[in-house]
Amino acid sequence: MSTVQDANTTVVSGFHPLDVALRMTPQHDGSMQATAPAAYWNMVGPYGGITAAQMLQAVLAQPNLLGEPVSITVNFAGPVASGDMRIEAVAVRTNRSTQHWTVSMGQRNAEGEYEICTTATVITAVRRETFSMDSLDPPAMPDPATCERYDTQGAMEWLHRYDMRVVQGAIPTVWDDSGQESISQLWVRDDPPRPLDFPALAALCDVFFPRIWLQRARRVPAGTVGMTVYFHAGSEQLAQQADRHVLAQASAQAFRNGYFDQTAQLWDAEGSLLATSHQIVYYKE
Amino acid sequence: MSTVQDANTTVVSGFHPLDVALRMTPQHDGSMQATAPAAYWNMVGPYGGITAAQMLQAVLAQPNLLGEPVSITVNFAGPVASGDMRIEAVAVRTNRSTQHWTVSMGQRNAEGEYEICTTATVITAVRRETFSMDSLDPPAMPDPATCERYDTQGAMEWLHRYDMRVVQGAIPTVWDDSGQESISQLWVRDDPPRPLDFPALAALCDVFFPRIWLQRARRVPAGTVGMTVYFHAGSEQLAQQADRHVLAQASAQAFRNGYFDQTAQLWDAEGSLLATSHQIVYYKE
Repeated sequence: MSTVQDANTTVVSGFHPLDVALRMTPQHDGSMQATAPAAYWNMVGPYGGITAAQMLQAVLAQPNLLGEPVSITVNFAGPVASGDMRIEAVAVRTNRSTQHWTVSMGQRNAEGEYEICTTATVITAVRRETFSMDSLDPPAMPDPATCERYDTQGAMEWLHRYDMRVVQGAIPTVWDDSGQESISQLWVRDDPPRPLDFPALAALCDVFFPRIWLQRARRVPAGTVGMTVYFHAGSEQLAQQADRHVLAQASAQAFRNGYFDQTAQLWDAEGSLLATSHQIVYYKE
Repeated sequence: MSTVQDANTTVVSGFHPLDVALRMTPQHDGSMQATAPAAYWNMVGPYGGITAAQMLQAVLAQPNLLGEPVSITVNFAGPVASGDMRIEAVAVRTNRSTQHWTVSMGQRNAEGEYEICTTATVITAVRRETFSMDSLDPPAMPDPATCERYDTQGAMEWLHRYDMRVVQGAIPTVWDDSGQESISQLWVRDDPPRPLDFPALAALCDVFFPRIWLQRARRVPAGTVGMTVYFHAGSEQLAQQADRHVLAQASAQAFRNGYFDQTAQLWDAEGSLLATSHQIVYYKE
């Protein structure tokens, strides 16, 4: 879905930057050619969430796709460089109502060798309506319109692609090793606003800054190495959510010898879970 | 590690059933040949936890392995039949301190075609000692010696391989749709007792019965389709834990149109996290 915007936004060529990132050209060998999106640049490569969105899109674009995504696990194996990338999505097993995919993203390195920089597995399924309930209530949050927007002035490029309104657990402003609980709660949506779809939701699951920064009030190098998203929403719930703010919550369970985990929940504007997500994150201290 | 047992236990040929399951023969093409373990049989194939352990073992057995496991994601793509299986583990990317693996398990079907039944990705890493803390306290639990052991009489074969002592959230004895909170807390270890290692820990992460049974007090068909384990423990912590009971906790966050998620924590006997784990589970209602 593409959203034409005014010329004074950051939108490239009249298309939403997320849609630009998701543009892929099918190749003769069945793979997809895509581009590392400059609009989502992080410190040493694209924002991990946008890489996850691209890996998912490479599956969603396949003609033999069965159903909708239920799960994606993305492993960030190495840095993604600017320029072209090749994404290969293979349906390794198709059952009656589920389909299992393996996905790899690769680029040629400086020596001209093809290197895998990202791997993923995706499960898609045809779901039918049945007993459903959330076991986890969303935290009480003020209306997003009344919450101050996180100031991204001078921040990395990808942060400008999101409208974040942090209610609890904002990024520390003083790095004094004081530390606090590792939980963050915020409202977030694409900027410019864009109707939510599966790739956008996968990308949103990675918006949290490293939990170690909050727990320690110390800014140490950190980066996600693996991330899983379980999609509870189907396309109908995504359509109802449209471009409203998503309630996002994340916390860590353990920090141990260079790796911490993160568990996250994303609710729609009505308080129904859209996705739950998990990460294993490298930190250097 | 193998544990020789008395002849009157269930141990096959003097070896622990888990060690029997983890026996693999390297093939000329770099893959491993293993066997679907009868000692861990579930309703329509091996217990998912043992399949996860085998996928991990296929990585740990590689001569070019770097470090210890940090993460494994296993997707159960199709049923595993009895007999031989082929497990292929490929190091798709090796960095200075991390290594990324893709793993597939396959078997020949009745028509003689080779079919993938399980996929996995594994991240291994060389970890160094640094700031560590758990953000999640273990629940208060009585000593395992004082807890009643779950009676596995007449149960499926794999359940006899575990000594489970459920303190909270046992499998319902009356299926009356009454329902309750989806949380379970139990002590669990291999039976016969066996020193904990990474494959054993991966297997333990799948011991919980389907959360939908607890939430609904209704026994509906259910099966794990994807499972992730984040290993917080290194080999030193595993050695300290040895063969003592592990504290295991699991709950669901959402049940939605045929799939629910499960988030789980496993602590050692000293109350330090060994692993956190997540599943996406199919249910039919």
